[in-house]
This record gives sequence, structure tokens and C-alpha cells, in this order.
Amino acid sequence: MLKVGINGYGTIGKRVADAVAAQPDMTVVGVAKTQPNYEAHAAVRRGYPLYAAIPERAPLFSEAGLELAGAVDELVAEADIIVDATPSGIGAENRSLYESHDTPALLQGGESADVADVSFNARANFDAAEDADYARVVSCNTTGLSRVIAPLQEEYGVEKVRATLVRRGGDPGQNTRGPINDILPNPIHVPSHHGPDVKTIFTDLDIDTMGLKVPATLMHVHALNVTLDERVTAAHVQALLEQENRLYVIPEGMGIDGVGKLKNFALDAGRPRGDLWENCIWGESIGVRGRDLYLFQAIHQESDVVPENVDAIRAVMGLEPQDESMRLTDDTLGVGISGDPAGFSQQQVPADD
Amino acid sequence: MLKVGINGYGTIGKRVADAVAAQPDMTVVGVAKTQPNYEAHAAVRRGYPLYAAIPERAPLFSEAGLELAGAVDELVAEADIIVDATPSGIGAENRSLYESHDTPALLQGGESADVADVSFNARANFDAAEDADYARVVSCNTTGLSRVIAPLQEEYGVEKVRATLVRRGGDPGQNTRGPINDILPNPIHVPSHHGPDVKTIFTDLDIDTMGLKVPATLMHVHALNVTLDERVTAAHVQALLEQENRLYVIPEGMGIDGVGKLKNFALDAGRPRGDLWENCIWGESIGVRGRDLYLFQAIHQESDVVPENVDAIRAVMGLEPQDESMRLTDDTLGVGISGDPAGFSQQQVPADD
Repeated sequence: MLKVGINGYGTIGKRVADAVAAQPDMTVVGVAKTQPNYEAHAAVRRGYPLYAAIPERAPLFSEAGLELAGAVDELVAEADIIVDATPSGIGAENRSLYESHDTPALLQGGESADVADVSFNARANFDAAEDADYARVVSCNTTGLSRVIAPLQEEYGVEKVRATLVRRGGDPGQNTRGPINDILPNPIHVPSHHGPDVKTIFTDLDIDTMGLKVPATLMHVHALNVTLDERVTAAHVQALLEQENRLYVIPEGMGIDGVGKLKNFALDAGRPRGDLWENCIWGESIGVRGRDLYLFQAIHQESDVVPENVDAIRAVMGLEPQDESMRLTDDTLGVGISGDPAGFSQQQVPADD
Repeated sequence: MLKVGINGYGTIGKRVADAVAAQPDMTVVGVAKTQPNYEAHAAVRRGYPLYAAIPERAPLFSEAGLELAGAVDELVAEADIIVDATPSGIGAENRSLYESHDTPALLQGGESADVADVSFNARANFDAAEDADYARVVSCNTTGLSRVIAPLQEEYGVEKVRATLVRRGGDPGQNTRGPINDILPNPIHVPSHHGPDVKTIFTDLDIDTMGLKVPATLMHVHALNVTLDERVTAAHVQALLEQENRLYVIPEGMGIDGVGKLKNFALDAGRPRGDLWENCIWGESIGVRGRDLYLFQAIHQESDVVPENVDAIRAVMGLEPQDESMRLTDDTLGVGISGDPAGFSQQQVPADD
């Protein structure tokens, strides 16, 4: 069993921990947390050994009644690989800690690409992580774009991608972020940094992106245009996308007209935390004009990178080839919603101890 | 096994169905739905026989690939009791249907009090439903107020209650409701109708309420003042409230500073749909000036009435006495979070079939 340590037990870290715990070939040896808040209590309830990410704060944990297994450097020493799920920029600072213990690590998409040896998306470039010790799992938006671009490129060829990313201002618990009544061109310079980030996965892709932030917390929505190398029908594209397990083409007639109902849909199905690991593409929105393909997709910023982290662990450690890893990840987590609306997978919902 | 039919499978109905299915003494004989949307598909996945609430629309269900067990009047004939979870005002229209089949029914708090024989809150007036055929489970806000008033009244006596209800504008999926950038005195006449609604439970209570609506979807928050008959300490009140299984006094230091993080807390614990069946009272907010008690509590409008509906079924049908019913409901659903932050109950998360 591969021993995985999680440094940072917030929005991404807690989800990756549960996903790792569900795998047959790896185990969570501990999670590191900066403060003894409700998430730290949840980690203990789930049975994950808890480490102080900032050793000086260890007494705060005992005051809160939380037993520590040690400090973060002990976790790094104990683990075969670390998933760094700390806030943007902290991962870069942490790399030297991992190097000092010769412990490979995954970093998240909030870090600069040059912090890692390779940027990673399971569908698009799994094998690129084979010889890497430090892999960056690209951001939620880049993951969402990569998953849909890969099959289009393989099937039709892509001349150019243009995408407008209408992003949520903050996650549901992030009550100090905005905007609360604005539509922010963000970043205001165009094209945005998201396009170059996708090019860390597809080196030769021609892609321009524009980003905005709006008063929403649940998901991002992409308005996507892909100019293909050949003329296709919308029906052909839909059939192609429906074959991808990490894309969910929302059938017409389901009454899911926005991201609120999409989240309800996931919660109703018993998905842990109401997570939507898949890109959610509105079937009605898939449209073609000449060689131009258009669609809307919703991206759950809290969870779409979770299966990608699991696959990145296997890629970096050489545990399984791409297809086998993705299949195993999807089967264990319950990733994948078939076009048949009745086809939700049996969900694995981790319960508290 | 008592046969329970659910008429209306939306926000409340789907939750009540899952709660009934989890009880040892009752079973879901069917749910009625007006349209074949994602919730109808979820009902079928969960194995609930599906009935057309509007018989003329039956063909729409077959077109969507959903098999119907019949029309709603057949469900009413088949059931020992109906839980009507239709939108406000429809329950009143439905009562004659239930009467024509001699089927007792629960109505929800959106109906006028005079539509039912009795208004119901499990903690405050369980026994009042004993001889009723039609009981109204009071609204989420009235439920939340009743649960906290009952122990205060019993322990200290209550001179007067004054409450400001800062209400969410709509549920997460209700994307045609507002406000999106306003703070609405609503209703603008004071005191609001919420006080009289609480008096359907506590006949002689002196209570005034004021209501507002704000741009939020996750929960309501009450700013509560109770003038008690005697002087007490905040610590004594906190200890009293912590004894109530359907009140959760959020411990200090958990880092839960708003309703977004409260919902995260529930989702992290594996609660079905992230539901918070308990009033969530911020421990730090419990304050006393003379005989005036103050506190803030958050009320999850989608779920706090769910255990109340289960208890109301038992009360109307004479299945169990109050204490036994509430204990059974709470144990089967996992209602109750002890003051010890590690004390989340083992959750019962219904998985899809």
C-alpha cells in the first residue's frame, strides 16, 4: 500500500484524502492542518492522523481537544508521496521541505507551472508524469478545458479554442471574497492566463481565454468555442463527448437549467459533499456553425481535480498505466454519469467513524 | 408497516421520503410528482413507486422513460397516510382528495393553519395531534423558534419573545427568486405573520417578529431575544440548550462563522444532501442582560421540518408516544450533534439503488 500524506486539509485536501482512502492501492498516512477548526475535527472523526502544518501552533490543537500525531516534517518523512493542497503560493514554499526528505509531491494548479517538473491532466497527458518527482495537477478550469479538448483534438483536430470563463467569486464558505454585486472582467487583460495554463498540457494548442468573476459560489461556467479542423454535426460531437467518463452531457428534459439545480442533482444522488467530479455539459447547448463548435459546461471548482490527483499519484509513482488508473479511480469513487439519467453510479459516501 | 404516500417530491418531499424509508415502522408506498425532471428520475433510482400528480401529464413521464405506478388518487387510496409536500396553497386544494379516500394527511407550514385540525411541532405539542386526521407541520422558521422556546419556557418561564428573521431569498435551485442585491423588509408590516404562526403551537405566548429577505440561499438566521421570567446566566442557558437533541450549540473555536461554513461542516460529515436538521445556535452569541436572553441561530429551511414530519406521522397515527418517536427518528436519521465537536452521529446516507 502506497503511503500518501496530505499537506493542507481544506477544500481540496479533505476531498483528496477521502478519495485516496477509497483506493485499494494507497492509504492516507496523515493530514496536516494549520488550525484546529471544524475541518481538523472532521479529519480526526474520519480517522486520519493529524499533523500540525505550523509546529508552533501545536498547543492550539491540544487546547481544542485534538490529538496530534506530530508536525508536518514527520508526515513528509513517513509518506511515500505528499499531496500538497495548501493555498496558492504555499506549495512553492513547501517544495524544499519535500526535497529535503526525497519525498515526491503533487502540487495544485494555484502554483506556477515552473514549481513542478510537469503539469498533469489524466485524460490528456498521464504519461508525461512518469519520470517526474514533482507534478502539478492543473487548476479546476484547466482540468475542465483539457478534458473536453482532448477528445475533440483526437477525433477532429482543433484549429483554435476560444473560451470565456464565467467564474464563481468564492467557494460557499469563503465569506470574505467578492464580488457580491458586480460582473468583473478578471483578469482584465486579455487573453487571460488560463489559455497559457492549458498549453502546459497541450503544448501546441492555439487557445485564447477571457475570464470574469460573478456573484456565485457553486460552480464555474465556461462558454466554449472550438474551431475544428473538419465540419461535424452537433449529434456526432454529443455522442463523442458522452463516451468520456469524466464528461456528463446533461440530457434535455431533466429541468437542470443552472448550477444550483446541478448541485441539487448531485446531492440527491448521495454524492459525498454534493461533488460533481465531471464536467457538466448542457446537451442542448452543443451547437455547430461551419467548423465552429459551441457549448456551455459547468465546472465544480471544489472537486473536479480530485480524481486527477489520485491518477497523478499513480502516474508519478508508476503504479498503473493511464487507462487502468482512471478506471480504478472512477470505479472506486463513483465518477461517471451515463447519458441515461437513471445511470448514476452507486456512490461511495464515506461516513464518519 | 405503516404505508406512507408522499404527494409532492421537491425540496421537502424528497427528504421526507428518504426519512420515512429509514424508519423501522413505516414504508414509502409511492411519491407523486408533477413533472418528469431530475427529481423524478432520482425517485425512480431510489426505488420509490412514481405517481403522476397531474394525470393528464402521464404521457410526459413515459416519453422521459419513467414508468408510472399510477395517478395520485391511486396513491392516496393505497396509503395509510399522505404527507403533502406540494407548494404553498396546493395542500389546501388537495385536502378534499384526501378526505374523499378517508386518508389522513400531513400538510406543510406554507398552508394556512385553518387548513388542518392542528399545527404540530414534535418538541412543543406532540400530543395535540393525537385525535387529528389533518395536521400541519409548521414552517421551518416556526419549527426553529418552537424548538428553542419550549425548553426556555419550561425551565425559566417566558415573558415575551422578540425575533428578527433574516431569511434566505430562495433555495439554491430556485433561480427565479430574489432579491439578488437588496435587503427587503418582508413582510413590511410589523409585527410579521411569523409570531402568530408560533402561537399556533404556544397559544398563550407573547411574541412579536419582524422578517427580512436577503441575497442568500443556504439558510435563514434568527436574531432572537427572549425576556425570561427570571434572571439566568448565559452558561446556564447554554447547558440547557445543549441538552436538546435538535439544537446544536456550535462550540467556540470551530471556525464556523457563517452559514456557508455550517453547510460545509454538514457536508464534510457525510450528512445526506448536507442537511442540518438541528437549529444551529452560535455558542458565543448566547448573551444575557438582566432577564433578556439573546442569541443567533441558523435554520436550514430545506430540512429542519423533516424529522418533524416523521414524528407527526406517528402522532397522528398513534404509533408511538412523543419521547419514543423523537428518539427513534433521531437515531435512524442521525439527528443530533453533541457539544463535543467530535460527537457527530454516525450518518445514514441513503445511496441510490
